[in-house]
Amino acid sequence: MIKAGIIGSTGYAGAELVRLLLGHPEVEIVWYGSKSYIDKKYADVYGNMFRLVEDVCGDDNMEALSREADVIFTATPQGLCASLVGEEILSRAKIIDLSADFRIKDVAVYEKWYGITHPCPQFLPGAVYGLCEINREAIKNTRLLANPGCYPTCSTLTVYPLVKEGIVDTSTLIIDAKSGTSGAGRGAKVDNLYCEVNENMKAYGVATHRHTPEIEEQLSYAAQEPVLLSFTPHLAPMNRGILVTAYASLKESVSQEKIREIYEHYYRKEFFVRFLEPGVCPQTKWVEGSNYVDVNVQLDTRTNRVIMMGAMDNLVKGAAGQAVQNMNLMFGLPENMGLNLVPMFP
Amino acid sequence: MIKAGIIGSTGYAGAELVRLLLGHPEVEIVWYGSKSYIDKKYADVYGNMFRLVEDVCGDDNMEALSREADVIFTATPQGLCASLVGEEILSRAKIIDLSADFRIKDVAVYEKWYGITHPCPQFLPGAVYGLCEINREAIKNTRLLANPGCYPTCSTLTVYPLVKEGIVDTSTLIIDAKSGTSGAGRGAKVDNLYCEVNENMKAYGVATHRHTPEIEEQLSYAAQEPVLLSFTPHLAPMNRGILVTAYASLKESVSQEKIREIYEHYYRKEFFVRFLEPGVCPQTKWVEGSNYVDVNVQLDTRTNRVIMMGAMDNLVKGAAGQAVQNMNLMFGLPENMGLNLVPMFP
Amino acid sequence: MIKAGIIGSTGYAGAELVRLLLGHPEVEIVWYGSKSYIDKKYADVYGNMFRLVEDVCGDDNMEALSREADVIFTATPQGLCASLVGEEILSRAKIIDLSADFRIKDVAVYEKWYGITHPCPQFLPGAVYGLCEINREAIKNTRLLANPGCYPTCSTLTVYPLVKEGIVDTSTLIIDAKSGTSGAGRGAKVDNLYCEVNENMKAYGVATHRHTPEIEEQLSYAAQEPVLLSFTPHLAPMNRGILVTAYASLKESVSQEKIREIYEHYYRKEFFVRFLEPGVCPQTKWVEGSNYVDVNVQLDTRTNRVIMMGAMDNLVKGAAGQAVQNMNLMFGLPENMGLNLVPMFP
Amino acid sequence: MIKAGIIGSTGYAGAELVRLLLGHPEVEIVWYGSKSYIDKKYADVYGNMFRLVEDVCGDDNMEALSREADVIFTATPQGLCASLVGEEILSRAKIIDLSADFRIKDVAVYEKWYGITHPCPQFLPGAVYGLCEINREAIKNTRLLANPGCYPTCSTLTVYPLVKEGIVDTSTLIIDAKSGTSGAGRGAKVDNLYCEVNENMKAYGVATHRHTPEIEEQLSYAAQEPVLLSFTPHLAPMNRGILVTAYASLKESVSQEKIREIYEHYYRKEFFVRFLEPGVCPQTKWVEGSNYVDVNVQLDTRTNRVIMMGAMDNLVKGAAGQAVQNMNLMFGLPENMGLNLVPMFP
Repeated sequence: MIKAGIIGSTGYAGAELVRLLLGHPEVEIVWYGSKSYIDKKYADVYGNMFRLVEDVCGDDNMEALSREADVIFTATPQGLCASLVGEEILSRAKIIDLSADFRIKDVAVYEKWYGITHPCPQFLPGAVYGLCEINREAIKNTRLLANPGCYPTCSTLTVYPLVKEGIVDTSTLIIDAKSGTSGAGRGAKVDNLYCEVNENMKAYGVATHRHTPEIEEQLSYAAQEPVLLSFTPHLAPMNRGILVTAYASLKESVSQEKIREIYEHYYRKEFFVRFLEPGVCPQTKWVEGSNYVDVNVQLDTRTNRVIMMGAMDNLVKGAAGQAVQNMNLMFGLPENMGLNLVPMFP
Repeated sequence: MIKAGIIGSTGYAGAELVRLLLGHPEVEIVWYGSKSYIDKKYADVYGNMFRLVEDVCGDDNMEALSREADVIFTATPQGLCASLVGEEILSRAKIIDLSADFRIKDVAVYEKWYGITHPCPQFLPGAVYGLCEINREAIKNTRLLANPGCYPTCSTLTVYPLVKEGIVDTSTLIIDAKSGTSGAGRGAKVDNLYCEVNENMKAYGVATHRHTPEIEEQLSYAAQEPVLLSFTPHLAPMNRGILVTAYASLKESVSQEKIREIYEHYYRKEFFVRFLEPGVCPQTKWVEGSNYVDVNVQLDTRTNRVIMMGAMDNLVKGAAGQAVQNMNLMFGLPENMGLNLVPMFP
Repeated sequence: MIKAGIIGSTGYAGAELVRLLLGHPEVEIVWYGSKSYIDKKYADVYGNMFRLVEDVCGDDNMEALSREADVIFTATPQGLCASLVGEEILSRAKIIDLSADFRIKDVAVYEKWYGITHPCPQFLPGAVYGLCEINREAIKNTRLLANPGCYPTCSTLTVYPLVKEGIVDTSTLIIDAKSGTSGAGRGAKVDNLYCEVNENMKAYGVATHRHTPEIEEQLSYAAQEPVLLSFTPHLAPMNRGILVTAYASLKESVSQEKIREIYEHYYRKEFFVRFLEPGVCPQTKWVEGSNYVDVNVQLDTRTNRVIMMGAMDNLVKGAAGQAVQNMNLMFGLPENMGLNLVPMFP
Repeated sequence: MIKAGIIGSTGYAGAELVRLLLGHPEVEIVWYGSKSYIDKKYADVYGNMFRLVEDVCGDDNMEALSREADVIFTATPQGLCASLVGEEILSRAKIIDLSADFRIKDVAVYEKWYGITHPCPQFLPGAVYGLCEINREAIKNTRLLANPGCYPTCSTLTVYPLVKEGIVDTSTLIIDAKSGTSGAGRGAKVDNLYCEVNENMKAYGVATHRHTPEIEEQLSYAAQEPVLLSFTPHLAPMNRGILVTAYASLKESVSQEKIREIYEHYYRKEFFVRFLEPGVCPQTKWVEGSNYVDVNVQLDTRTNRVIMMGAMDNLVKGAAGQAVQNMNLMFGLPENMGLNLVPMFP
């Protein structure tokens, strides 16, 4: 059994990690770290865990935790993981960081978009960006994993095949994303109150959202040229789900069949990416609670553009599920162990 | 492997059966029966099942199905199962009927509340009412199981201990229930459109809802006297979940501690009933997607009443989950096999 | 023009007062009081008011306000209005208090349920409980008006006719209420976050909710005997609306027709109470945004009970709308001036 | 008093017309036309209208109606209005058509996108496209008004100033729109059931939505060159509201200040267009129930693009409200008469 500790287990992503790890046959959770609820029963913080988790919350002492755990998940605000991690800790336990601290290779970019000084840039070169479908081999051998952001996971997987194959002009790439409210976290803010979010839609972080450079970096690797794109997130009145609608102009005329072949080629063997049948639009509800990303693409010959769509559960494939998928790879387990989750509908 | 067939697999309860049985280690689904979608791919009817179910929908030929399946689930409108079942079929396969056809022992009561003639009353004596926590032993030996209604499951389990122990005056029993909209089914009706249900609450079937006699019958067995009660269902703007708030006057003064002891006594060993800590009100969200029923009770000395509360997922413990729980019992499997579902929050 | 000031204009009830008063032909708002947003533009606190309100928020200086305003609305937590009001202020301006401070005549009851010492019990005898349909004449002549609570308004109007006429046994009265989340206010609390409320239902304040004694007092006046009842509020996943389902046993056998006649008698001439046609259940959505209360009643001869139902918008008839209705009465204006609001559907 | 008749009064847009016209001081509704509910009481079809509308539904006999009414609103599926209208009718009553029949000047384009033969193309030249902020003068003098579609209204007003001024390269224009579900109408379809829409987001009509050519035509007039754009509508889990996020590349470098000046110039005097303060993103909830369109724009110098955002209530400014605004213009009334609706929040 793999002993797992969670720092930040009382946020929504942390709670989803608990849900998934409780169902994982090879994992035992040994540490429910929290900042706000230390010494409180975990099941008092999340009533759904009544009788399923008897533990009380611990703190975020990564040093102590690394002596008890084989793997440490950090589901915490940016800056925290990077301020706690160290060589000794990494020598004892593998780290899967759900924050942004090790996602962006260029320290200057990280510091500019996040507005903080990176506490330990020396670990950046060794960290691996955990988008399994793309970096699978590197993930297997790392001890410090940067779990991708929710928007970057959905955005990258939605557009990856055509960017990688050089079919689209990346300078025309526009990503319009809609997210459920769990992505905003469990902090007590007026903006996230029920009455403010319900029956409402809005964009936010227009032209400034921190996930932009992360998407750009990954797509730059794929395109083998610098990618600069427009990314606009929106808050939608639902708990879970991210829907990405992406637009790009074709470099040259390509048929709908050819485009579908490319997607098929990339995703045929991927367990967690479902390339939908022609004409079917991804729906966030079709993947809720599961680790799937549903993807489809539509050629528009009128405008010489492709419209690429992707849907996933932001807390699963966009956070905890992908973290478990990464853990499986890092520990030599079947990639989908504990993740055979059938989407719940309705 | 148990071969299972589902008649009515394209309704919400049927679809939930598919979700649960896909995760059951000892079951294989061999028949996706449907009335409206015969010959259509199941995954085209429920997009969440894309790549998980390759089958096409069959019809509702129970005779043919009984030659292929060990167990047949009928998730169909009242009257259908009773019109299809027969001695020969029952000799070949066990039947778990999610409709009301075999729930009520008194044919006259059934016919009065449901307004139809019972097609095969001769099977009623042999049918077992599948509320596992109460009829566990009888369930193990039946071949025709009447799966309880959603409201009756939640209502009965919420009030059972105090009724059984004779603590409350059953003539004062009032059950006020609130249900998510999946309970209304997938039929295309104006009343169930998004814009009609969203941001809305209403009672319906006031003093006339068909689940009333079912609850009364079960509580009459418990009380060992005829029980007549008020039951009012309400439609709530959410997909899943039933919340029951029940009221009854005490026969004589009892302490809160004593009342809690009684609930503890009845539910301590029950895997799927969680008796909450003092002062905690059940929330439907805390059980979503799982087979749990969360129950609690509050003594009000001012009015000499108890307020009893229960929450469950209407599609799981209120339909498909309980059906699987019954199947497990009927086939000698561990009662919770395939049902270790951690509630999803948020 | 009546000059109106609002203390507590940045809560949801205060904001609704602003919405209604902006549409009132005889009122001008001269003071947007706030505790949290002093000196901030009101339209920055409520974006819907952009270009409709140019003012900045003031404080809660009732003394200064009373020199500028003809009427002062206090939409503040309990205790504040009572601590600010005084003889001099009342000599200059009429007060309409949306908090609980002057609703309960018996100081001891107030102090017990609210857990605070009443700052000025000397004003209680002169205060009038502003349930217009019942206290219309007294309201016209008061200078200190206690605007009823949301639950008490809906509960009282729903059951009033049968209690007043002595048809029901008040010792059997049970009120099960469901409220939208705006009733919980705009405070930043985890419990009121979108993801906690959405897709969820729960009871709260079971047997202890502070609106209980307020309902009991009003019904005691009607019944001319002390009334003790069970009141259970529930939180529903919607912004607005309260639905009350009330149960009571009949003292003696009465026909459905007779019961309907009684309701007709009491409400025929009431502009804001709509007694629905036989068999129609009130829906909160049918009254959203308006000052109407929809009421209906169903006799259940099986159990010798009546089920009484009421629906209203908690922010309008349950708070701001009723406050304006009271203001109209206090200033000799037509009772429905500025309140001809057509319910918005969907 | 203007006598108004509504054909299609029992759809959501028709019902919103009823709501608005009931509050209009110069209008009397004389005809509640319906296809599905002929001879049924209107208040039985829309419970919110109980006691506010006593009429029963009539049919869609435009000929008869034109003898009773000064203005006829048609809130019906495409094709119906054009099949009913005629010279004689137009000589008696003004027509405001909320369907698409007279929106597109080029018959071939209409017939291609709508898949039907236009019944009376001879009236197209005389029909006026009723986007008041752009065609105000022409509207005043027409007798046949084509009320704009919901998406085209929000899309066009959101991007109009920069397109008109030639600031953006219209060949790069992408419009990503999100709509509440009332836009899908009140027809009983599985896709619009509560459980299918709730907690779900999806695109639909990708590259094929019928509002595309309507937007393109209007923007072509503005740009004085043919505009071809990508338009993608999405279904969002809310009753009302459309949010448009539009992207376009700048033709040449322009400052954020200059861009804001242009919007100010166009919308300063518009009563129903609110150009928001810098950095504020429009929210659909801020305009709910009102005739406002909230608009803002953000320059992204990194990508040399502008992101333009607009929010409105699809049933008001997107349908019934704009129809009333047009009626006011056509009858020489103040443009905002009956439309001083304060947005409802929450």
